[in-house]
Amino acid sequence: MLINCAVYQYGKKVADIPKPEISDYIEQSDAFVWVALRDPEPEELDEMREEFGLHELAIEDVQKGHQMPKVEEYGQTLFVVLHLLELDAEGKIQIGEVGIFVGSNYVLSIRNRSRTNFLNVRERCEREPHLLEHGAGFVLYALMDAVIDRYFPIIRALEAELENIEAKIFSGDSTTRASIEEIYMLKRKLMIVQHSVNPLHEAITRLHGGRVPHVCSPLQEYYRDLDDHLGRITHSIEGIRDMLNTAIQVNLSMISLSESAVTKKLAAWAALFAVPTMIAGVYGMNFEHMPELKWAFGYPAALTLMVVLDIGLWFYFKRAGWLGGSDQMITVKIKD
Amino acid sequence: MLINCAVYQYGKKVADIPKPEISDYIEQSDAFVWVALRDPEPEELDEMREEFGLHELAIEDVQKGHQMPKVEEYGQTLFVVLHLLELDAEGKIQIGEVGIFVGSNYVLSIRNRSRTNFLNVRERCEREPHLLEHGAGFVLYALMDAVIDRYFPIIRALEAELENIEAKIFSGDSTTRASIEEIYMLKRKLMIVQHSVNPLHEAITRLHGGRVPHVCSPLQEYYRDLDDHLGRITHSIEGIRDMLNTAIQVNLSMISLSESAVTKKLAAWAALFAVPTMIAGVYGMNFEHMPELKWAFGYPAALTLMVVLDIGLWFYFKRAGWLGGSDQMITVKIKD
Amino acid sequence: MLINCAVYQYGKKVADIPKPEISDYIEQSDAFVWVALRDPEPEELDEMREEFGLHELAIEDVQKGHQMPKVEEYGQTLFVVLHLLELDAEGKIQIGEVGIFVGSNYVLSIRNRSRTNFLNVRERCEREPHLLEHGAGFVLYALMDAVIDRYFPIIRALEAELENIEAKIFSGDSTTRASIEEIYMLKRKLMIVQHSVNPLHEAITRLHGGRVPHVCSPLQEYYRDLDDHLGRITHSIEGIRDMLNTAIQVNLSMISLSESAVTKKLAAWAALFAVPTMIAGVYGMNFEHMPELKWAFGYPAALTLMVVLDIGLWFYFKRAGWLGGSDQMITVKIKD
Amino acid sequence: MLINCAVYQYGKKVADIPKPEISDYIEQSDAFVWVALRDPEPEELDEMREEFGLHELAIEDVQKGHQMPKVEEYGQTLFVVLHLLELDAEGKIQIGEVGIFVGSNYVLSIRNRSRTNFLNVRERCEREPHLLEHGAGFVLYALMDAVIDRYFPIIRALEAELENIEAKIFSGDSTTRASIEEIYMLKRKLMIVQHSVNPLHEAITRLHGGRVPHVCSPLQEYYRDLDDHLGRITHSIEGIRDMLNTAIQVNLSMISLSESAVTKKLAAWAALFAVPTMIAGVYGMNFEHMPELKWAFGYPAALTLMVVLDIGLWFYFKRAGWLGGSDQMITVKIKD
Amino acid sequence: MLINCAVYQYGKKVADIPKPEISDYIEQSDAFVWVALRDPEPEELDEMREEFGLHELAIEDVQKGHQMPKVEEYGQTLFVVLHLLELDAEGKIQIGEVGIFVGSNYVLSIRNRSRTNFLNVRERCEREPHLLEHGAGFVLYALMDAVIDRYFPIIRALEAELENIEAKIFSGDSTTRASIEEIYMLKRKLMIVQHSVNPLHEAITRLHGGRVPHVCSPLQEYYRDLDDHLGRITHSIEGIRDMLNTAIQVNLSMISLSESAVTKKLAAWAALFAVPTMIAGVYGMNFEHMPELKWAFGYPAALTLMVVLDIGLWFYFKRAGWLGGSDQMITVKIKD
Repeated sequence: MLINCAVYQYGKKVADIPKPEISDYIEQSDAFVWVALRDPEPEELDEMREEFGLHELAIEDVQKGHQMPKVEEYGQTLFVVLHLLELDAEGKIQIGEVGIFVGSNYVLSIRNRSRTNFLNVRERCEREPHLLEHGAGFVLYALMDAVIDRYFPIIRALEAELENIEAKIFSGDSTTRASIEEIYMLKRKLMIVQHSVNPLHEAITRLHGGRVPHVCSPLQEYYRDLDDHLGRITHSIEGIRDMLNTAIQVNLSMISLSESAVTKKLAAWAALFAVPTMIAGVYGMNFEHMPELKWAFGYPAALTLMVVLDIGLWFYFKRAGWLGGSDQMITVKIKD
Repeated sequence: MLINCAVYQYGKKVADIPKPEISDYIEQSDAFVWVALRDPEPEELDEMREEFGLHELAIEDVQKGHQMPKVEEYGQTLFVVLHLLELDAEGKIQIGEVGIFVGSNYVLSIRNRSRTNFLNVRERCEREPHLLEHGAGFVLYALMDAVIDRYFPIIRALEAELENIEAKIFSGDSTTRASIEEIYMLKRKLMIVQHSVNPLHEAITRLHGGRVPHVCSPLQEYYRDLDDHLGRITHSIEGIRDMLNTAIQVNLSMISLSESAVTKKLAAWAALFAVPTMIAGVYGMNFEHMPELKWAFGYPAALTLMVVLDIGLWFYFKRAGWLGGSDQMITVKIKD
Repeated sequence: MLINCAVYQYGKKVADIPKPEISDYIEQSDAFVWVALRDPEPEELDEMREEFGLHELAIEDVQKGHQMPKVEEYGQTLFVVLHLLELDAEGKIQIGEVGIFVGSNYVLSIRNRSRTNFLNVRERCEREPHLLEHGAGFVLYALMDAVIDRYFPIIRALEAELENIEAKIFSGDSTTRASIEEIYMLKRKLMIVQHSVNPLHEAITRLHGGRVPHVCSPLQEYYRDLDDHLGRITHSIEGIRDMLNTAIQVNLSMISLSESAVTKKLAAWAALFAVPTMIAGVYGMNFEHMPELKWAFGYPAALTLMVVLDIGLWFYFKRAGWLGGSDQMITVKIKD
Repeated sequence: MLINCAVYQYGKKVADIPKPEISDYIEQSDAFVWVALRDPEPEELDEMREEFGLHELAIEDVQKGHQMPKVEEYGQTLFVVLHLLELDAEGKIQIGEVGIFVGSNYVLSIRNRSRTNFLNVRERCEREPHLLEHGAGFVLYALMDAVIDRYFPIIRALEAELENIEAKIFSGDSTTRASIEEIYMLKRKLMIVQHSVNPLHEAITRLHGGRVPHVCSPLQEYYRDLDDHLGRITHSIEGIRDMLNTAIQVNLSMISLSESAVTKKLAAWAALFAVPTMIAGVYGMNFEHMPELKWAFGYPAALTLMVVLDIGLWFYFKRAGWLGGSDQMITVKIKD
Repeated sequence: MLINCAVYQYGKKVADIPKPEISDYIEQSDAFVWVALRDPEPEELDEMREEFGLHELAIEDVQKGHQMPKVEEYGQTLFVVLHLLELDAEGKIQIGEVGIFVGSNYVLSIRNRSRTNFLNVRERCEREPHLLEHGAGFVLYALMDAVIDRYFPIIRALEAELENIEAKIFSGDSTTRASIEEIYMLKRKLMIVQHSVNPLHEAITRLHGGRVPHVCSPLQEYYRDLDDHLGRITHSIEGIRDMLNTAIQVNLSMISLSESAVTKKLAAWAALFAVPTMIAGVYGMNFEHMPELKWAFGYPAALTLMVVLDIGLWFYFKRAGWLGGSDQMITVKIKD
């Protein structure tokens, strides 16, 4: 679907043009054409390939989709693929793609499988004619900047998830299947973001620094700034990744600890039952000469003995933390 | 076994030729010879070595097999080894090999231990005479492209296996020997694919970018596209690998958790038995003065006490999740 | 907030000047201006941008904050971002930032979210006029040196925390939730410091060695010394990190060990109860011909048997370490 | 001990010569001397040092032994150290060493602590005079090829050990001390091979590709082939290493799983005993009014109740896999 | 404290000189001065700085201590820092430092916090005048060689500790707190050695190979030999490190295994008690019609039944290894 097809000159929009006129405007060296497509049909792509004279391998990449982010040069044409990441309602990450072809006087962006639009990019560009004057190179920068800026809220969402997981681990809620699944799912999301960011971070070095495509050369500082943004995202991902690996190990310790607590509880309660059972067993023996059996208060005395011993044991186990009390108290103290 | 032996000129097939004429055609600079062998006998290899003037070390590699994927130059001849991966009926990965010799006007492909054939490659080449005009370099590209394209379904199969394992882990089925074996076996398959892909990914950089063999130079974009494909495969492998390592750790947590659940169940049931046994013990004591023993409803009262206490305990344990109920309920809620 | 704005010439302070005169002094090549801001308002930043002619992307970085440490060149201007780390009262690490713009004859430092001030840096510079004569390059060095020097006490604090954790692990205190949380929190702090140090360590190589900004070139040894300091910090961080990972694993072993000790204790005590219960059961049988039941001392003999067996078992378990004694004794021996 | 000392010319052996004549022949540029020593005495080494004019540091390396594999140039002399690996009768890896000095017209090989001899290398060289004509460089290649070829069977032995360990893990035999020790010992052997192969793999790049020693330059393809062999060995080692690490983790899961199975068995059997004991306790109570006690078939009815309940429980536990049955059945199914 | 201060010419010692004359001799190009200090006072350092004209940053490094090993050039002066490692009586590693300043005709070594002296270095140098003739460069080599040679016995001590730990793990002694602490402490020591060796290994490449300081250039082979020594040490450290990580994991498996063994023992003994208790319970029931109760041999028959069943069970558990027997037997067999 065609979103937009316009000609810009001296940093200002000149006219919307129909698709077949694109190739005419491209030959004019002082204007540039900016075309935006969304989920295009194969025929539309074919049309674009002819109008702009694009390489068949690049067009194939756009058509097939599921490419890694990359920056490729086909002769004078720059072909950039970026991932568009969005969090859906259930917190899952949806991956769309945008392929951008940049020539010395045209930009063609083709967006696939994503609801994110680039209207604000066009607005921003039109608001800054002194930068837009740099032509296609600045449009590419603005598009990339918009895509990369949308990675930050996703990183923040993942960091929030990690904090949520940490809170669960140290509150003792971590020993359920659901918590472990959350840890795993965060790792998965992290991997998705990583696979969108890392190849782009590597590829973007081709747009600033040493030998760069002609169209980007007057905008070195701007592309380096994108590199810097990706660097920060990479660092954040590395950080979450590192802490998540630690969280997995720490959680295993917590599970072992809670297992140990269960065994202690089991042992304590077993003892609380074993004592009266043993005493009852003793007074259930059939010896002829057992003086206690004849005492008037033998029975209540036996019951009292049972209760007293159990109360004693109960306090002993409580103090030792085997009934779950003191250990949790310690935890609470530390959390406050 | 000889599969094919033909001469091509200006992108079109000219003639099938007998093997002994190969060396004659190689001397003609405007035609190229394309020969395909399958599981060749040593004598056939010797014949080829003489016709094409191949290096003995390369021929030895083909004969011995079990090489790593590689791209080597012997003077003007390019020698490429690729792994052919196939999933057999039981989901195991079978590894075949193809060795390709490329000179300025010949291509010799020797396929070993694989049922995969390259008929479609020949068809594709003959359908695109404008590309086949580039000669041996394009045939090499087409063969490599065909081999690499067949890696994708294998990667997808491994991803499906991983998803299957994840589903098992979080449904609680993961705590069996069989599940752990599946995890291990997936790791093994992953390693096989990795050993086929990684060396090739490294080697392929010699065919595009900087100084490349003469025969590949007009097809830079095409070889870079192969590199890009291998990059995507490498990323997918890294992703599966990473998640699998996490799955192993998470599964250990799940096993510990289920162990803990077993201990809780044991403890709960032990308590359910211990309470009536203790009460029975008390009323089994032989004290002379135990008023309850003389009550008309003493026995049913005692039985009722046992049952009531056990029902109480049962609900208590049920609510605490020690009988396996509430924890699974939580899991179910999260899975939906 | 403006902290300071002064002109220096030949290594000595000449005058405090009002902000609007900055641009006048910058044009004089034999003097340099040193301006320090703290948590500036956007208007102040705008003013500075105009006076010094700074790049909008760099100003944006300062305004937004939360940058990674970096060294960037915007034409002749050097832009350096450093993290200011402080331990607060609860031992948490607070991260502030300082952005430093350095031109051939000016230094502008902008400090954000940090209580640390740089008064001592100015004093040090004024005390060493022979070095301050090198101009802006030396001021940059002195500021960086002051920031990096403040990392050392934080590293020492983390090392102390690690030693504290180690002491707990090997004294047996490590098997509580609180200890595991401490381990995790140390890892988190370590990560924060790492994210402040590593990018800076990478970036600082641009200030010495090969091609360096003009303003730094006469101070090569000094910048290399900073690199060396960062190298030591990096090594310490790596060391803590490595030991902490080992500590996590060792702690898990300790937890498993203590779980095993609990099971042993449970087993030992179960046996101590089971023996008298079994004997009591035997003498509670209702056989008609049980000679012991008629003995005058049958009952005390049975009780004695119970006690004697239990004492025997108790010593047996004590010696085997199942009651917690001997294992702890061994530990104590080793710790002394 | 001197093994051999011969002069070769135009790819053919000319004569065996006594040691003192070595230095005479070295001066002749069209012949080369090939000397082989085994476990030499210090005096023999001194003699060689003088005859060939070798560097004292290299001689010291040979004398002390326990060097890493390496390729060093001392002026025009090439000094190569290789490890000779052999599996002894108990499957342990024995490490010998061979030091090779190569000049433009001599080869001196000194073998230490190894039963492996190089007779077949000499035979191979003499069988291929067209290659031996390349002189000392080819002899070096032939020696290195022989050494490296002997690494393959060791790699295969380690792979077989890994498969053996895998079979044990998934058959359930892995939960014994002996199995864990086998895993550890395989890791150790792997490390030994790795320490013999990795430094050599790094060093061998100096013998082909870019700037290479004069003596190796006409044999580029041959040295690259050695590099390729080492690459395959390195890949195999990495593979075993990777799978072994996974095996260690998987085995821990298996141990936890089998622990869980033991606990289940314990719980099941405890229940099977607890039910009759509880029923017996109930009918052991001393209430006056317990109608069942007076029934003629009360006792057999009670026994029947016990047996019936236990049979029911037994089937229940069997089906749930708590008695070890069904889980193993699943495993068996999967293994076939 | 001044240890030594002497002038050397043509490889031989000429005279001991007083400190103030140092600067005079330095100006003579055909002699060189060799000064050794130990734990110097600040004033001594100041004196040296003036006599030799050293850089203040280097002097500061020596004064503060706790530097990483490094090789730095200050103009024509080479500044080398090395760690001196010693094992004290309790097996702990003590870290001293030596800072060496090397100019074209002087060597100044400053040793701190170490009992190791360099007398033998001076002796060695004076014994080899043909090498000492190379001047300061050879003295530096000799000092570094002496320092690095002292790392080998420490590596061997750590290897011995690792073997000791392995022996404990596989003999079953590893499941105590003390063993785990030993593992951890070995890791710590390893880290210390690593932090002394790795930076030095990196730094030493500046003294041989490409562009090297003038003073080292005629001794390339000697410095490369030091690099080789450090390479061997690094390999050994990597090996110990790798095996230690494996040992930690294997030990955790062993602990889990021994925990499992405890649970089995608990289960077996519980069964041995439960059987007689159950039988006693049955015959403790109060049914009127229980024929066995009236049998003359009913009581001994019941006791016999209990004993026979327990003996049967005991053999069953013994064979299954649940009483600790057979598993240990297997282990013993494997160890021999």
